[in-house]
Amino acid sequence: MTAATEAGLSTLGEQEVEDLAVGCTVLAGGGGGDPRVGLMMTLSAVRELGPADVIRLDDLAEDDYLFAAGMIGAPTVMMEKIPSGREGAVIKETIEANSGRKVAAMMPLEMGGINGLLPIAWAIRARLPLIDGDLMGRAFPEIQMCTPHLYDMPAWPCVLVDERSQAITFEPVGNVWLERLARNAVSVLGGCACSGLYPMTVARARQPVIAGTVSNAVRVGRALREARNDPFAALAGVLDTYPLMTGKVVEVERRTAGGFVRGGAVIEGTDQDAGRLVRIEFQNENLVAIEDGEALATVPDIITLLDRHTARGIVTEHIRYGQRVVVTVFPAPEQWRTPRGLEVVGPRAFGYDIDFVPVEEQHAQAR
Amino acid sequence: MTAATEAGLSTLGEQEVEDLAVGCTVLAGGGGGDPRVGLMMTLSAVRELGPADVIRLDDLAEDDYLFAAGMIGAPTVMMEKIPSGREGAVIKETIEANSGRKVAAMMPLEMGGINGLLPIAWAIRARLPLIDGDLMGRAFPEIQMCTPHLYDMPAWPCVLVDERSQAITFEPVGNVWLERLARNAVSVLGGCACSGLYPMTVARARQPVIAGTVSNAVRVGRALREARNDPFAALAGVLDTYPLMTGKVVEVERRTAGGFVRGGAVIEGTDQDAGRLVRIEFQNENLVAIEDGEALATVPDIITLLDRHTARGIVTEHIRYGQRVVVTVFPAPEQWRTPRGLEVVGPRAFGYDIDFVPVEEQHAQAR
Repeated sequence: MTAATEAGLSTLGEQEVEDLAVGCTVLAGGGGGDPRVGLMMTLSAVRELGPADVIRLDDLAEDDYLFAAGMIGAPTVMMEKIPSGREGAVIKETIEANSGRKVAAMMPLEMGGINGLLPIAWAIRARLPLIDGDLMGRAFPEIQMCTPHLYDMPAWPCVLVDERSQAITFEPVGNVWLERLARNAVSVLGGCACSGLYPMTVARARQPVIAGTVSNAVRVGRALREARNDPFAALAGVLDTYPLMTGKVVEVERRTAGGFVRGGAVIEGTDQDAGRLVRIEFQNENLVAIEDGEALATVPDIITLLDRHTARGIVTEHIRYGQRVVVTVFPAPEQWRTPRGLEVVGPRAFGYDIDFVPVEEQHAQAR
Repeated sequence: MTAATEAGLSTLGEQEVEDLAVGCTVLAGGGGGDPRVGLMMTLSAVRELGPADVIRLDDLAEDDYLFAAGMIGAPTVMMEKIPSGREGAVIKETIEANSGRKVAAMMPLEMGGINGLLPIAWAIRARLPLIDGDLMGRAFPEIQMCTPHLYDMPAWPCVLVDERSQAITFEPVGNVWLERLARNAVSVLGGCACSGLYPMTVARARQPVIAGTVSNAVRVGRALREARNDPFAALAGVLDTYPLMTGKVVEVERRTAGGFVRGGAVIEGTDQDAGRLVRIEFQNENLVAIEDGEALATVPDIITLLDRHTARGIVTEHIRYGQRVVVTVFPAPEQWRTPRGLEVVGPRAFGYDIDFVPVEEQHAQAR
């Protein structure tokens, strides 16, 4: 991802939030859920209580306590079972009650889809500043697929809160156990719930936090908004962009079970790509793009279907027959491309017996 | 149940624990699980750390804090997935950490099966006195089927702990929600786990606690141990006993799913009962005894299959073809026979469209 050429944001007002929603669809790799509900909730919070304060880790003391937050569950459910808005406050209170420490700030768990937006609304309503950063640098489907896990940092105590303000606190023996327990609880709660996890001090947060991702997403959304003729050129101006194929969606199948949306889509090449056929497979997020039995791109790189005309991202639950798309890839944050990162979120972590090849080694970058 | 004719216990040593194990099989209504594992763990704790201290609510201050504990899950799993013994201590620490209060004592959740024993072991290892009483007066399969629920008292904060010392704390909106969430978590943890629930002050505990049930169970076990020729006569000397039929088990089917053991058994009458056929249906505990399409007895009364020769109880997961049994019923504690009690644990709560008839109105008591 290109280095930030401007200072990060210090507030998120209505315009920034709208830009953020667009940026989140591009950066989520198809996942994270349709940001629409999160966008409405965040705009509502901004109008009621004012913009979100955005800070950096350096703005806090080393032993200040913070947590990451996001919804866990199937994005198809997230579009219908709407959060109450109180979840961030309940998470904060529960973490404070359990730990005996005051919470100083919060951050998004992942920068993608609805989870790039909801934590903003929660931060505003819980009166907490929002850290410009997250723990994935994109969206991923499972709880242990966060950067702290690479350094054996625990995701717990982890708090799950639903729209009824029911709270469940988990203290498992490991992050994979937490994923299993929390995912199951999410199913019982109706298919999605809100989580506060990876509570940690600022000192411990420095290594895992991927800084600047909120600002980046706003920057992407603004670039697309301000683009006159060529949104793809505008996008390439703010992100390292690798378009793989232009085409039309000719097939899509999804099944929602166990807190995930699994399935695939087939895109038939058009224009200069006529005759080509690419299959995308997803588990909430897009995992692989395959052509003629070979992987064009895989996790952890960010594979997104962008609308051919607007360059906005299409989340997996909105893929449908006839959509005109550009299959596009963005490089994953470096932490995920390490050997340990690939153990956690590489193709084999998802059951594909494929070696990861960085997108820039296989394809040409858009200029 | 006959009134206690002697003062309650003040300690539980090895002999009392062995008698308690026998008494628990009689009083559990077929449920609560085979006490064998609980018995071994408790004897081990007594030998290592000394007898359990047994107290009454009156021995505590009104604002002293206490909780009830027991295993939740399928008894078939409880026989194999053995607790670590540390669970009581982890529950105590978690409740203290979450509530900010010291715990003064604990009690069994239910007086039956393994759950009449395990809390003794936990109390000894957690260095807590054990209250002579419980919250069911027998065994029942679901969390809301406890006396506090009759008075709208919350079972939460509820802590679930497994043998790996993983802990989950639930703060739901109601006891039925808690049953659903905890039961599901128990399945993910492997089929059974240990729970601490209904934390409350002594002042609040007075109404729901069914006092003296630990002493009663010890008394029943001792009566059977000391019986010379006729254990059934010995039993009738300490409990209001209603034998319904003597017979042989000719059929049993069980299925373990969703944290319960469901099924039924058919007993063919022998001796003076030749020609009769009685069917028992169970969900962990025995729910109904049916003959010729009519209910002989139902929950909340305690329906137990007693071994024909020893009068010891047979838990549902040990019922097998050929066993010689006496289908026996004991009256339920009065709290369960109230209209509110019947809503929670009467036949209709388990899906049977049957009116509850107290056993003493239908059958003759053993003398």
